[in-house]
Amino acid sequence: MTIPNAGPVLVLGGARSGKSSFAERLVEASGLAMHYVATGRAYDEEMRDRIARHQAARQGKGWTTHEEPVELSGLLRSLDSPGRAILVDCLTLWVTNLMMEGRDMAAEFAALAALLPGMQARLIFVSNEVGLGIVPENRMARDFRDHAGRLHQIVAENSAEVYFVAAGLPLKMKG
Amino acid sequence: MTIPNAGPVLVLGGARSGKSSFAERLVEASGLAMHYVATGRAYDEEMRDRIARHQAARQGKGWTTHEEPVELSGLLRSLDSPGRAILVDCLTLWVTNLMMEGRDMAAEFAALAALLPGMQARLIFVSNEVGLGIVPENRMARDFRDHAGRLHQIVAENSAEVYFVAAGLPLKMKG
Amino acid sequence: MTIPNAGPVLVLGGARSGKSSFAERLVEASGLAMHYVATGRAYDEEMRDRIARHQAARQGKGWTTHEEPVELSGLLRSLDSPGRAILVDCLTLWVTNLMMEGRDMAAEFAALAALLPGMQARLIFVSNEVGLGIVPENRMARDFRDHAGRLHQIVAENSAEVYFVAAGLPLKMKG
Repeated sequence: MTIPNAGPVLVLGGARSGKSSFAERLVEASGLAMHYVATGRAYDEEMRDRIARHQAARQGKGWTTHEEPVELSGLLRSLDSPGRAILVDCLTLWVTNLMMEGRDMAAEFAALAALLPGMQARLIFVSNEVGLGIVPENRMARDFRDHAGRLHQIVAENSAEVYFVAAGLPLKMKG
Repeated sequence: MTIPNAGPVLVLGGARSGKSSFAERLVEASGLAMHYVATGRAYDEEMRDRIARHQAARQGKGWTTHEEPVELSGLLRSLDSPGRAILVDCLTLWVTNLMMEGRDMAAEFAALAALLPGMQARLIFVSNEVGLGIVPENRMARDFRDHAGRLHQIVAENSAEVYFVAAGLPLKMKG
Repeated sequence: MTIPNAGPVLVLGGARSGKSSFAERLVEASGLAMHYVATGRAYDEEMRDRIARHQAARQGKGWTTHEEPVELSGLLRSLDSPGRAILVDCLTLWVTNLMMEGRDMAAEFAALAALLPGMQARLIFVSNEVGLGIVPENRMARDFRDHAGRLHQIVAENSAEVYFVAAGLPLKMKG
């Protein structure tokens, strides 16, 4: 279980699939300086609880945590350095935040894609696969899953390895 | 990347998974005469936009497009000819249209299944996997995903190759 | 197609994916005494119809059926015996019933996990993957898919083989 140096790793999975744990184990086994980028915003108590539980689980293992709901590409650029592994958890929350801010999604995705090939740090992206249920009735949810799907394709195309995680088990889709 | 001559290809995937692009690339690499069967009905502007975008993407590449929301088996029979590849996009929209018309779903699926072994054209079916979310609250959505799931099993059983596409990456399930 | 003796088999899949049929075929090919544990409760006519259809499909093939919506671990312990195959269909309905009864989910899952390594019967668990759609709007549905996801990870970790079934086709994730 190693992180490739040929490009990012994308870890896709459903809710409670074990995707974040898998990604964290990848980084923890790498021997690199461990940076965690949390894109989630705590809108309510449920969310705050989840974030706190995740942080507690990483605590004491040597992770440096960064919170950035929107300016992900800028943060990745500023953190870039060889010898670092940067885990972004997760892309779908970033998509949600970009939509809330009314950003130009295609431009944001293109900026991230443009950044990836030149990064010296190892990047691991975690994201929720959300497109395998019934078509949602509300337009915003439909737009969200369209944006998420497009972003997954863009990141996967620029990644060295892509995993699909279910029941805690990683299935390699690429690499 | 070739189309087998032993039977149809089924390409399953979620929303914005890249399943249609993958299927189109399969056909475009085949050297066969390219026929596109669109089963979608434009109920609203959002849908019309999507259909128009998809048609524009195929334009100029030599595809012949056919629109048939309901009488899929009849159209396939009339188009059958060696040297042709027929891409059906997508089965889930056909299921929706059959339900709207109050058709006998089992009979429609059986008619399609009966047609497949004798076809001389190469067939590529695209469909949405919709059964991996929470059970929908409304009965029609539950019926829809039951019908879609049954149809996928029937078509997969009669196919030479089945792919599951996520993040633009095809995973071979059969063949 | 054989059942391993190194531990349980977990069969995950979406609605109408063919997961139950695949699990039943596994057991029917095993030559073992066949026990079927139905965890579903018939809340309405739709559900009663489904249960009856499933029972009819097993009828005459030599299955012994047990219905147990809640006390799954106790039933499995009481049925344990070498030479038996026990198919549990399905874990997600058990999760639903535990939630309805206000049980301590973590304790129930831990009790099941503790039971698995010592079982002499071959166990086959069927469950719905429900975490690959849009985040549900209601809290109970979110809790449900969190519980289901956690249980899948626990059972997968204690299983010798894990399959993901789509369109009737099993994809081996573990074993």
